Amino acid sequence: MSLLVIGSVAFDAIDTPFGSTGKIVGGAASYISLATSLLHNQVGLVAVVGEDFDFDFVKTLNQRGVNTDGLQVKEGQKSFFWHGKYHLDMNSRDTITTELNVLGDFDPIIPQSQSAPDFVMLGNLSPQVQLTTIERLAQKPKLVVMDTMNFWMDIALDELKTVIAKVDVLTINDEEARQLSGEYSLRKAARIIQKMGPQTLIIKKGEHGALLFGAEDQVFFCPALPLEEVFDPTGAGDTFAGGFIGYLASKGATDFESMKKAVVYGSAMASFCVEKFGTERLASVTLDELNARLAQFEQMMHIA
Amino acid sequence: MSLLVIGSVAFDAIDTPFGSTGKIVGGAASYISLATSLLHNQVGLVAVVGEDFDFDFVKTLNQRGVNTDGLQVKEGQKSFFWHGKYHLDMNSRDTITTELNVLGDFDPIIPQSQSAPDFVMLGNLSPQVQLTTIERLAQKPKLVVMDTMNFWMDIALDELKTVIAKVDVLTINDEEARQLSGEYSLRKAARIIQKMGPQTLIIKKGEHGALLFGAEDQVFFCPALPLEEVFDPTGAGDTFAGGFIGYLASKGATDFESMKKAVVYGSAMASFCVEKFGTERLASVTLDELNARLAQFEQMMHIA
Repeated sequence: MSLLVIGSVAFDAIDTPFGSTGKIVGGAASYISLATSLLHNQVGLVAVVGEDFDFDFVKTLNQRGVNTDGLQVKEGQKSFFWHGKYHLDMNSRDTITTELNVLGDFDPIIPQSQSAPDFVMLGNLSPQVQLTTIERLAQKPKLVVMDTMNFWMDIALDELKTVIAKVDVLTINDEEARQLSGEYSLRKAARIIQKMGPQTLIIKKGEHGALLFGAEDQVFFCPALPLEEVFDPTGAGDTFAGGFIGYLASKGATDFESMKKAVVYGSAMASFCVEKFGTERLASVTLDELNARLAQFEQMMHIA
Repeated sequence: MSLLVIGSVAFDAIDTPFGSTGKIVGGAASYISLATSLLHNQVGLVAVVGEDFDFDFVKTLNQRGVNTDGLQVKEGQKSFFWHGKYHLDMNSRDTITTELNVLGDFDPIIPQSQSAPDFVMLGNLSPQVQLTTIERLAQKPKLVVMDTMNFWMDIALDELKTVIAKVDVLTINDEEARQLSGEYSLRKAARIIQKMGPQTLIIKKGEHGALLFGAEDQVFFCPALPLEEVFDPTGAGDTFAGGFIGYLASKGATDFESMKKAVVYGSAMASFCVEKFGTERLASVTLDELNARLAQFEQMMHIA
C-alpha cells in the first residue's frame, strides 16, 4: 500500500542538559520518513528545503527506499530552522529561534505518480498546507492521519478545524487535547474532538504513554518504555506517528485491532528516537532491534 | 490466607473544586480495609481512634468481614485529623491542618489470634510504628507490602530505610521514588530502591497508571482508567495498595505473574475510589461492578 508523507524537513539546533547539537537535520517529515521506511517500502515524501540543506540525509532516505521526487529544493533560499532548549526535566522546552525560510510559502506539489496514495500522513505543518495536500489527492485514501500542535490552535484555529474535519486519525498531546476541547478530562476531551471529525484520536502523553480512542468509546492504552535516560525528546511524537502509520500501511489495515498494534509500534519506534540527538538513532535502528523492543513492550503489557 | 492491615483510621476534611466535605472518615487503613475486604474474607485491622470516631464505619467494616479486634479506642482522646485542599487540576493539594491526636503515641498491639498473618499491609504511618509491627509478628509472613510517603523521607529517612529493608514490596509515587533514589529516571530509581531491600517496587503515577518492577529487570505497566471526572483523589493510593494485596491474599500468591494481575485489581479498585468523596464509593462498590471494570482494563490493555 502506498504511503504519502508530508511535513517539514529542516534544520534544528537542540540544547539539552546533556549538551548542544549545533545545526542538525530535523523536521517532522524527516522523523516520520525514517520511522515509516523501516516498516514499509512504498513511502513518498512531499516537503521543501533550501539549497543549504544536508543532502546526505536525502541520500539516507533514498537508501531506505523513500521516494523523494516530491522534495522541492529552493535555490537561493534557506531551509526552515528551529532552535530549542530543553529544561532540566526534559519534559518542557523553550523556543529560542524559529526561521520559517522556505516553509513560509510552501506549496505542496504532489508528484503525479504519487497522487493517489492509500495512506497519508500529514505531519505537523500549517493547516493550510495540510488542507491543500488533501485537496490535491486524486482519490480518497484508505486512511489519513494528521499530527498538529498547540501553535496552530493559537493562531489558526478555524483552518485547523477545517482540516481536522477531513482526517481519519488525529494525533496530539494531552495538553493540546485539553486546549482543543476545552475539557480537562481526557475522556471527555476525546469525545469532543472525535465529534469534530476524526473517528480515531491518539493522545500522546510522552513518558506516560499514549491513549487510542476509537469509535463507540473503545479505548486502548500503550505505555512508554521506562528508559534509563531520555537524551533528546525532539521528534519523538513525529516518530511515533511514523511508526503508527508505517505499521498500518505495511499491513494495509485500518481496523481498531490493527491500530492498537500500530500504537505499540509507534511507541517502540519513539523509544529509540529519544536515545540520541536528532535523527541519529532512528537512522541506525534495525528491524531486529525494533523486534527486541517490541518484545519488551509485550512483556510490559501482557498478563498471562 | 490471613491478611493483617495496619495504618491510620481517621477523620479527613477535603476541599475540592467540586465542594467541601466537612469531617468524614478517612485514613490509609480505612481505604485499604474496604478494598481488601471486597476481595478477601480474612482481613484483620490494627489501628487506633479516639472516642470521637464514627463507629458506624467500624460496623461497616465488620459487616464486610473485617476483624477489628485490633482497633484501639482511646477514651478521652481525639482521632487523627487531616484537612486538605486540592488545586484546580486535582493533581496536587495543600495540607491545611494535621492533628496527630491518638496517632502521636500509637502502640500497634496485634491481637494474639492475628499475630502470624500470611500477608501484611503496612499502610502509610510513621516508619517506627511500621517497624514495631513487623517486629511483633510471631513468624515471617509470606509477603509484606509497605506504603509510605515523602513526609517520612523528609523527617525520618533513616528509620524509613530500616523498614524498607525488611519488606517484600514497596509502593510509592513517582516523585517519591525520585526523592528516595536521587534519580530522575524511574528505571534507574527502581533499581536503586530495589537494592535497599524490597524485591518488588510499585511506582504509582496517579492518572498515568502504575509501574511494577520485579526481580531481574522485569517490568509491568498498568494504565489508569481514563475517567470522565476525578471527584476526589484522596485515598486512591491506599485503595490501590488494598486491591493489590487483597487480590494476592485471596489467591495465596506472591509470584510476579500474580502481582501483574494484582496491580490491575488495585488500579480498578482505585478507579472507583476517586468517583465520590472519601470512602463513600468504595463502601458501596460490588464485585459485579469491579468485574465490569476489570473487563474495561482488559479491553484497554489487550492486543489480539
